[in-house]
Amino acid sequence: MRLRIRPTETAFYDLFTQLAQHLVEGADLLAKMLDESVDRDDVAAQLREVEHNADETTHAIINRVNQTFVTPFDREDIYKLASSLDDVMDFIEEAGDLVVLYELDALPGRMASMVEVIQRGCELTAEAMPRLRTMTDLSEYWIEINRLENQGDRDYRRILAKLFSGEYKALEVLKLKDVVDSLESAVDALESVANTVEQIAVKES
Amino acid sequence: MRLRIRPTETAFYDLFTQLAQHLVEGADLLAKMLDESVDRDDVAAQLREVEHNADETTHAIINRVNQTFVTPFDREDIYKLASSLDDVMDFIEEAGDLVVLYELDALPGRMASMVEVIQRGCELTAEAMPRLRTMTDLSEYWIEINRLENQGDRDYRRILAKLFSGEYKALEVLKLKDVVDSLESAVDALESVANTVEQIAVKES
Amino acid sequence: MRLRIRPTETAFYDLFTQLAQHLVEGADLLAKMLDESVDRDDVAAQLREVEHNADETTHAIINRVNQTFVTPFDREDIYKLASSLDDVMDFIEEAGDLVVLYELDALPGRMASMVEVIQRGCELTAEAMPRLRTMTDLSEYWIEINRLENQGDRDYRRILAKLFSGEYKALEVLKLKDVVDSLESAVDALESVANTVEQIAVKES
Repeated sequence: MRLRIRPTETAFYDLFTQLAQHLVEGADLLAKMLDESVDRDDVAAQLREVEHNADETTHAIINRVNQTFVTPFDREDIYKLASSLDDVMDFIEEAGDLVVLYELDALPGRMASMVEVIQRGCELTAEAMPRLRTMTDLSEYWIEINRLENQGDRDYRRILAKLFSGEYKALEVLKLKDVVDSLESAVDALESVANTVEQIAVKES
Repeated sequence: MRLRIRPTETAFYDLFTQLAQHLVEGADLLAKMLDESVDRDDVAAQLREVEHNADETTHAIINRVNQTFVTPFDREDIYKLASSLDDVMDFIEEAGDLVVLYELDALPGRMASMVEVIQRGCELTAEAMPRLRTMTDLSEYWIEINRLENQGDRDYRRILAKLFSGEYKALEVLKLKDVVDSLESAVDALESVANTVEQIAVKES
Repeated sequence: MRLRIRPTETAFYDLFTQLAQHLVEGADLLAKMLDESVDRDDVAAQLREVEHNADETTHAIINRVNQTFVTPFDREDIYKLASSLDDVMDFIEEAGDLVVLYELDALPGRMASMVEVIQRGCELTAEAMPRLRTMTDLSEYWIEINRLENQGDRDYRRILAKLFSGEYKALEVLKLKDVVDSLESAVDALESVANTVEQIAVKES
């Protein structure tokens, strides 16, 4: 028998929006890293910084939910939303980190397409977070994320087919596959964020 | 202080049974795919269709739990059971998909044994779901699933040993290991379904 | 509106302490396995035994929480803590198991450093569990675990760089990477345990 009290608890929406904006910054840095002419070590350092900021925001959300008596929606859903947003960030940072660690030069072209999917997904997520407050226009968001996830999945499968086409050596395949798997996980995590938002919206309707 | 009201809320049991039956169909299609003489693209398309149906059923369960005031058992357990059943489906579909994507011909014989474990596990799960209603004869189910998981694990380890025996080239190992890891994950997910059922049964006892 | 009743429910603290002590035993056996002169099959058998005991303790915690009316802290947090401790054990056992299965001889030196991180993390965790009762001196524990996680991460990255340096053949890289990934997962799982403890402490403060 859940009580439904709506205080002016706006801090959660602000923090979720802030967290999603870190994702946008992270995805943009990841896109930069695909360009071979940049100083990748420098971009990777910036990416780590953004990931650190996202961690702090996630932490702030979790501490707040643990110390707040009335939350704008289910406590468990707040945890889930915060941790799935944080997962997106972790996979973005992991992908960028591996590009540097493995000293990868030429990346299959379709990787850029996957990173664009991630950038677009992060932007849509950042735009959707403030709308959690009024629960309006959220279905457009999760429908579009699902479409992006399908596109990301097609890209992923084509990259895999290319990696195993015989064009690459085994060690190179191992390295590239690690990066592509991180990208794929980031796309999946974006979908998982959208699923959580959908669940929250259904409960409130 | 949980209230225990038991309405005639039978829809959940029906939906869980339906979801588990999709798993049986999926596992059967995966077994078909091991046969090199079939049209694998065709079987893969059928498998995607089954996976899509399972997604819809999972969705229906989650929407219903979010909109229902009284549920037959803990809300969180319904989520967990639905999502772990859905995980089984995803891993089955992933395995089948990789067989086609990687254009694998000869698969190590023991893979068929692992797929049989998955088929049997899905059948047992589908038979157990309607018994959630009366909470009868469930321990046989999870004991048998645990036995199957042990068998699947032995198969998995023997396949790994074979893959690294020197008989296969590195790229081939990478491909086959991806498929076998998906099979292993499907077996683990079946065990995770059984653990959730056990937890539900313990709470109700 | 959670009631806060504190019965003399000490069994949970004892069980968590016992579970964490199994982790210490497991980590010590894993360290032993790095020594090429030991009978690895024998150590692996001991490790499986410890993992089995940890499973039983996890099971005992979950059954108790399901059958107990008043728990010392949130039911969901007890599940989370038990299952994340169990995850640490699973990854330790997996790493040891793969060393035997892949018949690995020479392991990169830095692997020993990662295993030391895991040993130290398990010891700290076992020392922290009894302090859950009074919620004292827990922040030292999770700060130190975070420091260890950073060290483990640096080791992990250096091992990866070495694995891909050209010194190892592709199949050898595949095998070693599997083991190192398990070690990395064990370190991450230790951090996840510490995060759960932190959440519990924040709620109680």
